[in-house]
Amino acid sequence: MARINDNYLKLKAGYLFPEIGRRVREFTDANPSAKVIRLGIGDVTLPLVPAVIKAFHAAVDDLAKGETFHGYGPEQGYSWLIDTIIDKAYKPLGVSLKTSEMFISDGSKCDCSNILDIFDNANVVAIGDPVYPVYNDTNVMVGRTGEADEKGYYENIVYLPCTAENDFSPAFPKEKVDIIYLCSPNNPTGTVTTREQLKGWVDFARKNDAIIFFDAAYEAFITESDIPRSIYEIDGAKECAIEFRSFSKTAGFTGVRCGLTVVPENLLATTAKGEKVALNKLWNRRQSTKFNGVSYPVQKAAQAVYSDEGWPQVKEVIDYYMDNARIIREGLTAAGIQCFGGVNAPYIWLKTPEGMSSWDFFDKLLTECHVVGTPGSGFGPSGEGYFRLSAFGDKGNVVKAVDRIKQKWGK
Amino acid sequence: MARINDNYLKLKAGYLFPEIGRRVREFTDANPSAKVIRLGIGDVTLPLVPAVIKAFHAAVDDLAKGETFHGYGPEQGYSWLIDTIIDKAYKPLGVSLKTSEMFISDGSKCDCSNILDIFDNANVVAIGDPVYPVYNDTNVMVGRTGEADEKGYYENIVYLPCTAENDFSPAFPKEKVDIIYLCSPNNPTGTVTTREQLKGWVDFARKNDAIIFFDAAYEAFITESDIPRSIYEIDGAKECAIEFRSFSKTAGFTGVRCGLTVVPENLLATTAKGEKVALNKLWNRRQSTKFNGVSYPVQKAAQAVYSDEGWPQVKEVIDYYMDNARIIREGLTAAGIQCFGGVNAPYIWLKTPEGMSSWDFFDKLLTECHVVGTPGSGFGPSGEGYFRLSAFGDKGNVVKAVDRIKQKWGK
Repeated sequence: MARINDNYLKLKAGYLFPEIGRRVREFTDANPSAKVIRLGIGDVTLPLVPAVIKAFHAAVDDLAKGETFHGYGPEQGYSWLIDTIIDKAYKPLGVSLKTSEMFISDGSKCDCSNILDIFDNANVVAIGDPVYPVYNDTNVMVGRTGEADEKGYYENIVYLPCTAENDFSPAFPKEKVDIIYLCSPNNPTGTVTTREQLKGWVDFARKNDAIIFFDAAYEAFITESDIPRSIYEIDGAKECAIEFRSFSKTAGFTGVRCGLTVVPENLLATTAKGEKVALNKLWNRRQSTKFNGVSYPVQKAAQAVYSDEGWPQVKEVIDYYMDNARIIREGLTAAGIQCFGGVNAPYIWLKTPEGMSSWDFFDKLLTECHVVGTPGSGFGPSGEGYFRLSAFGDKGNVVKAVDRIKQKWGK
Repeated sequence: MARINDNYLKLKAGYLFPEIGRRVREFTDANPSAKVIRLGIGDVTLPLVPAVIKAFHAAVDDLAKGETFHGYGPEQGYSWLIDTIIDKAYKPLGVSLKTSEMFISDGSKCDCSNILDIFDNANVVAIGDPVYPVYNDTNVMVGRTGEADEKGYYENIVYLPCTAENDFSPAFPKEKVDIIYLCSPNNPTGTVTTREQLKGWVDFARKNDAIIFFDAAYEAFITESDIPRSIYEIDGAKECAIEFRSFSKTAGFTGVRCGLTVVPENLLATTAKGEKVALNKLWNRRQSTKFNGVSYPVQKAAQAVYSDEGWPQVKEVIDYYMDNARIIREGLTAAGIQCFGGVNAPYIWLKTPEGMSSWDFFDKLLTECHVVGTPGSGFGPSGEGYFRLSAFGDKGNVVKAVDRIKQKWGK
């Protein structure tokens, strides 16, 4: 009989968000009049901005006429979109990229999963803890790990704990690692990697022949001018890093689907025999063979994000969310709850009051304040005792949620 | 240093369509006045139909307003789209499917590549020859094969030659195989698998504990009523087959991107220890972890394909292409060229005149008739001496191309 990929059975069955959904349903079924405010899952709520809608419609109209119809596009993405992103989002950072170094995709989740295709399973990977679960689970699925221990740590993955004790900035791994996942601004902690810290990682990677997967999905939320938005702002990063970006949070594209990956041409890795190979060529082959490009109207809509008309509109939405983040951060701090993040990221990572476990706090917050958040322990063992609130909600609801928390925990 | 996936280096560098592009450019540069007609690559040319455009615009407008905005959708696709497809495209065939058995994707190329994720590399796969190159190359990339021999056959893949001698219907493999790729209507040969033949494959798969990957991307082009459009029309197929479908050719979505995969709940495979596992659950886990669903407006546009207004419009486009297929088939036959396919598929597979090689015929057709097609040998060794013409062009050009061929080879 055909054999399955047994590695899938190593994955733990229960995923975080279904469990949250179950508990919320149970509560609302029992308390139908409760006005529950959801600050849990990291999904945007505001509509697409007018300039994006306009470009989207125009592109749909292109598909309605023979002269402007577009069939298969380049698997790598249209050069007009790539060049716009390079020009508007990278050049201002002092980063120059070639068109052939950027690949448009249908989202960062796909890219940071699929990138593993071009690497051998013998590579040792290091990931943060807590972490975006996709980094961990996709490595389990390709067979790079052993089984999970009782804490949830998989054999052969090097975990880098990020807690208040180390200011969410982990020490360099002591083991030899080949691939390092970094995410800044960080999901779930909302904290950022400073320029000096990032330089430390680039230097470490180059010295130790490792490759960094840099997830910059939240770079648009950075408000402090000295925080790097791209790893390529650091000298030498083009020789050691792949960068992922997304339109999902930047421009509300969670339901529209567009992201991108940068694989610099000078980035090399080796064959079993030790010959050096350009990863750009391998990723290009992967995408050409297993992917057919992003929807044409979606690419046109994405281009409009960076237009003269579009960007100020997009920025206004980002500012709205970041004002929510401020309200949450300041409100919780006033209630005596210790908060992290929320300055350069749409997530607030809080230390649960009274030493509660993440899930105990979840239940208390749900049943007593009617507010839904995300238990930190769902992102990894080092998230225990922490809790994530998202700033993507409606401002009125955010204010109400914070008031309820203050009433409950405020001194 | 980080190690690459060495299997990528087994892939042959030159891909078919870039080489075609190179030769066409060389010719047109030297002959700028030649009016070259392209019947090569299988891309559609007619615009999206009005009902699809209307639904697409309406969905974009949904994203412009807070009340109708859609963020993350289900990774599996919206149930309103799945249920519409089941109702309109499967029920009329006598096939009943559950919502949870269908997964919407951004295209068949991705699905028939990614499906390998959930299978162990120890499985032996059988593929047709000639074949859609993606089936072959993705198996090489995951490491299921050895190196290619001088003909282009990779070690550990079982190839099933499909030629005029066996009426393009290959014999069952003699070796034990675990996964069998079938494509009907077939790309590139344009031929179909009859009901009796398909029943033979289903029975063979069940008897031999194999799984069939059934690629039905061209089912909408079937004109003969007794040809199966879905493998699930055959009793027992739900216990042995995964089916892939696409909106690309059916509704001109090559640039819009939407496809689907059916994984029946009763379809099982085994672990290394011999325990049976439902593939539906594994695929669901794969898609939930590595994919984020298809663009909301694209799913709305796809739903309109099957609306009362949309389907007759879509059917009219299909009929237009199939009339092109008839013109090519009849014209070539009249010119004494032996043709296959083109009755239930938008591809005509012809035997090159005078025993020419596929590439010699390509060059002759290009330089003497100014017509571009696809050399059969590009699809596999058994394609040598054959040639593919696509019916997706403009009718006026198709007529001109056929006239030129008749003038050249007609008796």
